[in-house]
Amino acid sequence: MTEFSFVMEHREADTRGRNGVVTTHHGQIETPIFMPVGTQATVKAMTPEELKEIKAQIILANTYHLYLRPGSDLIAEAGGLHEFMHWDRPILTDSGGFQVFSLSDLNEVTEEGVYFQSHIDGSKHFISPEKSLEIQQDLGSDIVMAFDECPPYTHDHDYVEESLERTLRWAERSKAAMNSENQTLFGIIQGGVFKDLRERSVREMLEIGFPGYALGGLSVGEEKEEMLEMLDFTVPLLPENKPRYLMGVGTPEDLLEGVCRGVDMFDCVMPTRIARHGSVYTSRGRMTIRNAVYKNDFSPLDPDCDCYVCQNYQRSYIRHLIKRNEILGVRLTTYHNLYFLLELMNKIRAAIRQDNLLEFKKIFYESFTID
Amino acid sequence: MTEFSFVMEHREADTRGRNGVVTTHHGQIETPIFMPVGTQATVKAMTPEELKEIKAQIILANTYHLYLRPGSDLIAEAGGLHEFMHWDRPILTDSGGFQVFSLSDLNEVTEEGVYFQSHIDGSKHFISPEKSLEIQQDLGSDIVMAFDECPPYTHDHDYVEESLERTLRWAERSKAAMNSENQTLFGIIQGGVFKDLRERSVREMLEIGFPGYALGGLSVGEEKEEMLEMLDFTVPLLPENKPRYLMGVGTPEDLLEGVCRGVDMFDCVMPTRIARHGSVYTSRGRMTIRNAVYKNDFSPLDPDCDCYVCQNYQRSYIRHLIKRNEILGVRLTTYHNLYFLLELMNKIRAAIRQDNLLEFKKIFYESFTID
Repeated sequence: MTEFSFVMEHREADTRGRNGVVTTHHGQIETPIFMPVGTQATVKAMTPEELKEIKAQIILANTYHLYLRPGSDLIAEAGGLHEFMHWDRPILTDSGGFQVFSLSDLNEVTEEGVYFQSHIDGSKHFISPEKSLEIQQDLGSDIVMAFDECPPYTHDHDYVEESLERTLRWAERSKAAMNSENQTLFGIIQGGVFKDLRERSVREMLEIGFPGYALGGLSVGEEKEEMLEMLDFTVPLLPENKPRYLMGVGTPEDLLEGVCRGVDMFDCVMPTRIARHGSVYTSRGRMTIRNAVYKNDFSPLDPDCDCYVCQNYQRSYIRHLIKRNEILGVRLTTYHNLYFLLELMNKIRAAIRQDNLLEFKKIFYESFTID
Repeated sequence: MTEFSFVMEHREADTRGRNGVVTTHHGQIETPIFMPVGTQATVKAMTPEELKEIKAQIILANTYHLYLRPGSDLIAEAGGLHEFMHWDRPILTDSGGFQVFSLSDLNEVTEEGVYFQSHIDGSKHFISPEKSLEIQQDLGSDIVMAFDECPPYTHDHDYVEESLERTLRWAERSKAAMNSENQTLFGIIQGGVFKDLRERSVREMLEIGFPGYALGGLSVGEEKEEMLEMLDFTVPLLPENKPRYLMGVGTPEDLLEGVCRGVDMFDCVMPTRIARHGSVYTSRGRMTIRNAVYKNDFSPLDPDCDCYVCQNYQRSYIRHLIKRNEILGVRLTTYHNLYFLLELMNKIRAAIRQDNLLEFKKIFYESFTID
C-alpha cells in the first residue's frame, strides 16, 4: 500500500498557482496537470506507450460507461482497469453521477440513490454512493470520486440547494463506504453559480474531510466569467494542503486561468474530441485543418511544436487524411492536441517555479487567439 | 541514382521457392515479401514507424485513388509520396488500371486509353499508359506498373484475348514512355484462366522485356485451384533472374502456396480490411474477436505471437474496443495482422534458406485451419 499524499512545493508569487506532487498507488503526479480522458478504457486513438511519450502522468476513465460496457465485474476479472487497458500509471475515475444525470433516462432520484435506464439499451440500473464506490473498487482506479448530483446550469437557487444537500449526505456515505487501501476518495464541491451554496458546500465537505477536493458543476453552460468568478470565490476557501481538481475543464486558456486561480488538476474530452473533427491547438490558436486553405500547405501543424506529428508531417497530408476519414489522421491530430496541452502544463509548472506565471500568460495570449 | 536489381540468392530444394534481394532507389527488399497496402497514402491505422517496427520492407499505394484525391500534382508539390506520407523505404504503385476498370464509370475504352468518370464525384478523366506513368512519376514510387486491363473472371476466351492484345500494346507503350531514372517498370502478365493466353502473354512480355513481372488477373473470382493451376503453369515460363509479383494476393495460405510456386512479392488489403471488422489471423487460423466467446478471454490474440499487441493486450479488452468502435481496437488488430503476415514471410524466407519449405508448410497447416 502506498499512502496517498499531496505536497505543495511552491506557491507562485503573483497568482494562486502552485507546484505540487500527488502520490498515488501507481506513482506520482506533478501538478498542475491535465488528465487525458479515456472514457471507454482507452484515450481515444492513443496507445498507453504514446501517452507516456507525450508525458501523460494520469488519465481519467468513466465509471458509468465502463459499468455498463464491458461491465466493471469483467474488468475486475481481467485484473482491474490498469491491467485491462495496459496502463500502469495513475487513473482517476469519476463517480458516474454526471453521466447518470445527463445521459441516462432517469427513473427516480431517491435519498438512497438513483434508478435509471441505460442510454444504450434501456436496461434498468441503480447507483448509490456505495454502489459507485463498489464499481470504482472493481475498476481499481487510484483516485475515486464521491457520487454526486451535478445540476445543470440554472438560476433556480432552491433546486441547486436541495441537490447540494443530498450531495452532501451522499458524500458522507461515500466516505463511510470507502474500504479500499489503494484508492483515495475526493469529495466534490457543488453549489452552481451561487456563492452562498458554494461556501456551504466547502464548509460541510471540509467537515467530512477528504484527501482532495473537486470543483464540480462548472463549465456546464454558464458564462466563462461566471466560472472564473466561482473559482475566484471558491478556491481560497479550500485548504492549501489538498489537491484541487476542476472537473471537465478545459481549453488551453481555461487551464491557464484555472491554474492562476489555484487549481491543480484538470480533465476534458475537448482535445481528443476536436481532434476527431480535424481541429488542432497551435501556439496561434485553434486551427481547422480540414479547411481548403491548408490543401497546399506543407508546413507542420504548429511550427513552434516539438511533437512527433509536427516533426514529421505536413498540414497538407494531415488534411488529406482527415478528409479521407483515415484513422492515421485522427491519430495525428489527437496526439498533437494532447501533447499541446501536456506541454502547456509543463511550461506552466516551470513558470510557477520561476514565479513568472503572469509574464508567461501575457506572452501566451500575445500569440494565442481565442475563437 | 540506384540501379534496380534482383539477385536470386537461393533456390529451395523441393519447391520453386527462392530467396532473393530486390534493390531499389529507396533501399533493399528481401524476397519473398508481403507488401502492406496504403491505398490513400497511409497503410490504414498504422504509422510508418509502426510499419518499420513490424519489419515492413516495402508498401504499395494506389495510383487511381491518389490521382483523384488529393491529386498526384499535389503530392509532387509536397516532395513526392515518400515525403508526403513520411515513409522512406520502397514504394510500389499500381497503374490505376484495376480501379479504372472496376471502380469507375467507364465511358470509353479506346486504343489510346480509357475515358472514365470518377467513382467519387463523376468528374471526367482519361488515363493512358503514358498518363499512368506520368502520375506514377509524380508520386515518385520506386516500382511502377504498366497500365493494363485486368478482365473480370470469365470463360469468354475471345474477350480475354482481345483485352490481352491491347494490354500487350499498352505494355510496349509503357516501356517506351519510361523516363524516370529512379523508377523501375514491371510488366503485367494477363490471360485469365486460359493457358494459351497466359503463355502468349509471357512470351510477348518477355520480348518487350521488363526488370520484373507481375501476375495479374488472378484472385478475381476464380476457384483457388484454378489460381494455383495458373501459377503452376505460368511461373515456370518466367525468367529466374527477374522478380515475380502476384497482385492482390493474399491470405496466409495463399502466400505459402504462392511462394512454393516461385512467387517473390505479394500485396493484399485483406489483413488490414478484416482487422477493421475485428478479424485476426492466428497460428490456429482466422479468429473473429467480436464473438461473445472472447468476452472473458484474458489470453492474447495469438499465444504463439511475439508482437506488441500479443505481448500487452488481452482478447477481452480488444473485443471491448472493437465492439465500441474505438480506434485503438482497429489499431491493435491491424498491427497484429500485418505482423502476422510479415513474420510468416520471415519464417518462409528462413525455411527456403534451409531447404525446409515443405516441412514448414506441413507444420503450418497442422495448426492453421482455413475457414
